[in-house]
Amino acid sequence: MSEVSVKAKLAKEAADEMMMKTTAEKNEALSLIANGLRKELDFLLSENAKDIKNGKANGLTPDVIDRLTLDEKRIRDIADAVELLIDLADPVGESLETIEKENGLFIEKIRVPLGVAGMIYEARPNVTVDAATLCLKTGNAVVLRGSSSAIHSNKALVGVIHRALEKSVLPINAVQLIEDTSRETAKELFTLNDGLDVLIPRGGKKLIDLVVRESTVPVLETGAGNCHIFIDETANPEMAERIVVNAKTQRPSVCNAIESLLIHKAWAEQHGKELLTQLEKAGVEIRGDEFVCGLHSSSKQASEEDWGTEYLGPVISVKTVESVQEAVQHIQKYGTNHSEAILTENDKHAAYFQTAVDAAAVYHNASTRFTDGFEFGYGAEIGISTQKLHARGPMGLPALTSTKYIIKGTGQIRE
Amino acid sequence: MSEVSVKAKLAKEAADEMMMKTTAEKNEALSLIANGLRKELDFLLSENAKDIKNGKANGLTPDVIDRLTLDEKRIRDIADAVELLIDLADPVGESLETIEKENGLFIEKIRVPLGVAGMIYEARPNVTVDAATLCLKTGNAVVLRGSSSAIHSNKALVGVIHRALEKSVLPINAVQLIEDTSRETAKELFTLNDGLDVLIPRGGKKLIDLVVRESTVPVLETGAGNCHIFIDETANPEMAERIVVNAKTQRPSVCNAIESLLIHKAWAEQHGKELLTQLEKAGVEIRGDEFVCGLHSSSKQASEEDWGTEYLGPVISVKTVESVQEAVQHIQKYGTNHSEAILTENDKHAAYFQTAVDAAAVYHNASTRFTDGFEFGYGAEIGISTQKLHARGPMGLPALTSTKYIIKGTGQIRE
Repeated sequence: MSEVSVKAKLAKEAADEMMMKTTAEKNEALSLIANGLRKELDFLLSENAKDIKNGKANGLTPDVIDRLTLDEKRIRDIADAVELLIDLADPVGESLETIEKENGLFIEKIRVPLGVAGMIYEARPNVTVDAATLCLKTGNAVVLRGSSSAIHSNKALVGVIHRALEKSVLPINAVQLIEDTSRETAKELFTLNDGLDVLIPRGGKKLIDLVVRESTVPVLETGAGNCHIFIDETANPEMAERIVVNAKTQRPSVCNAIESLLIHKAWAEQHGKELLTQLEKAGVEIRGDEFVCGLHSSSKQASEEDWGTEYLGPVISVKTVESVQEAVQHIQKYGTNHSEAILTENDKHAAYFQTAVDAAAVYHNASTRFTDGFEFGYGAEIGISTQKLHARGPMGLPALTSTKYIIKGTGQIRE
Repeated sequence: MSEVSVKAKLAKEAADEMMMKTTAEKNEALSLIANGLRKELDFLLSENAKDIKNGKANGLTPDVIDRLTLDEKRIRDIADAVELLIDLADPVGESLETIEKENGLFIEKIRVPLGVAGMIYEARPNVTVDAATLCLKTGNAVVLRGSSSAIHSNKALVGVIHRALEKSVLPINAVQLIEDTSRETAKELFTLNDGLDVLIPRGGKKLIDLVVRESTVPVLETGAGNCHIFIDETANPEMAERIVVNAKTQRPSVCNAIESLLIHKAWAEQHGKELLTQLEKAGVEIRGDEFVCGLHSSSKQASEEDWGTEYLGPVISVKTVESVQEAVQHIQKYGTNHSEAILTENDKHAAYFQTAVDAAAVYHNASTRFTDGFEFGYGAEIGISTQKLHARGPMGLPALTSTKYIIKGTGQIRE
């Protein structure tokens, strides 16, 4: 048997035990993990140093090296994040629906753990702890498959987690790390339908696309955000400038930042030049249609490709449109169903836009940057789902649960 | 472009229109479809006759010919079922959650249509109408891919639906039938991730397994039921007999009928012989372990294969166990996570069983035959999900919806 199938089997057995654990038992384990991370800080730093050294020797970019790096502050932050999970409500056992039948049957739909989650992710060691503890809090077992560049860090972190679980009543086997980081082990996870209840990729668009395209295991897709703001004819100019600059520049590298701006022509004629100048002052490169380039001479001409590009950096594509309908059509064609916004004083246009745009979060007169599990008050975030089944938008702990019907009878049979 | 990609594209465009339709508009279309089916009864019968003739010439079994056959009563029943959908609550637009943030943002989570559903199914023409109308009621578009043996019936039924939609304000393209029923078109649907939001197989275990194993599009798996009843030491003998006979014999061909019986040894010693005799009298063949064969001489010896077999007929496997824990372990090993029951007067054992058994529906002192969308009061049933993501157990209309966050602001930006 392969490493993947052996460890998935152990995880499955552990998942059966995890289902039975109480909130207090799970929280105790989280507390032990947080303490273990702090206590074994030196060990974690020295193992992480091996990955950094190898990474530099292998020519990884400074960006990747930065994501790979653990320091004392980062480890303490990771431990603090684990402790924050303790105070969150445990979704397991929550009653979602009750049905009382005339024949006396009592049917209750409750939340239960999903079972075994597979996580495929890139060179961020913090994801190892994050994924493991979110799964433990929700009564699941997890099979972790990180990248080869972080293997020493991941082994060390899972070592700390295992030593903490040993002191708890949770099964150690609930957290499994696949140590063979070859392509083959990822492929094996893609089709492990008997062993995994869900597969969650965490990382860049390429990784997520690969998992979605190849996996027959159900996937929780978190993903790309080619987000738009549409400035309607009646938008308040001061508000529009504030929101657009925020949504583009407050943190351009994240998925809920905007990549594209649609402006009603009538508004653009009056206020477009001022807005584009402000964006430029904020360091943003503008790629516009002909009308935009006419308004603002330092804008570059946008290509067809620009409309579909998630820059994740200080670039924005800008297009003028004749109507809210045209804006919606453009978004349906180029958007990624993540976060979209309309700025308007016309409530009918807002209602139309919010119904017609098929995205996880659709805003009226606010920045798209709020699409986030913490901003929504969920206290934790598994990711932001851009798929439509199971969970959509910011996913809190309930996204890692399933449901079950519990039926209580007194001898009822079907006639 | 292939037939599948052209029709999926048309369905996608129609889905964007369907999102905007009101409950009244959707219900009007359903009413027109029901009337159309009744009005074009003769046409439907004559097209169906072609499939029956071909089927007989191709040597289809009487069972399959029966499932393929439409007669006046069946068509009227199908039309009546469409009309029943009209009275059901429209899940689209339902508010599931509201969040008010300190900064004044108002966040609402509402139900929205899924988009485009793909349906792959076998020789039952009634599924064509059932799938199409369930999707229309929930604001979705649908791509239907039935079997070659029902192609004349399916084309005729979709023709009736299209003529009805023409009179309504819904887009005709919301219902697409793939006329090429070769294996290639099924395969194309399996990987049409850009075109389909969900793929729903309806039919036997082989078809469902194929779709689950090959599809990278998210699947709603409805499926096999290797259901058990465990008779605990303290079970009421009269109740046990009534429930077991009902769960096995009331309709043995369906997925929520039981296939396997687990009996606590102490109970079996006292009441086993009587129960097995009653089952035999009801026409059930018994395949038991050694203890069972000792109790009841006409029982056959069960093989390892029997524990994992869904007979869907008048056969039952019977095993004796020493404890509720052993029963749970057996069910976790051989069950299909569908419907499982414990019969006991011991509430602690019932609670343990209902927590530890990982199935869509877990019963205490009632027949497993109640796992059904109509019995649960949902008024419609897409199928009974045996997967854990998105929906589990009997699926009513909400299983064909997704969610969306609608956020209303007054200029808020992220600090």
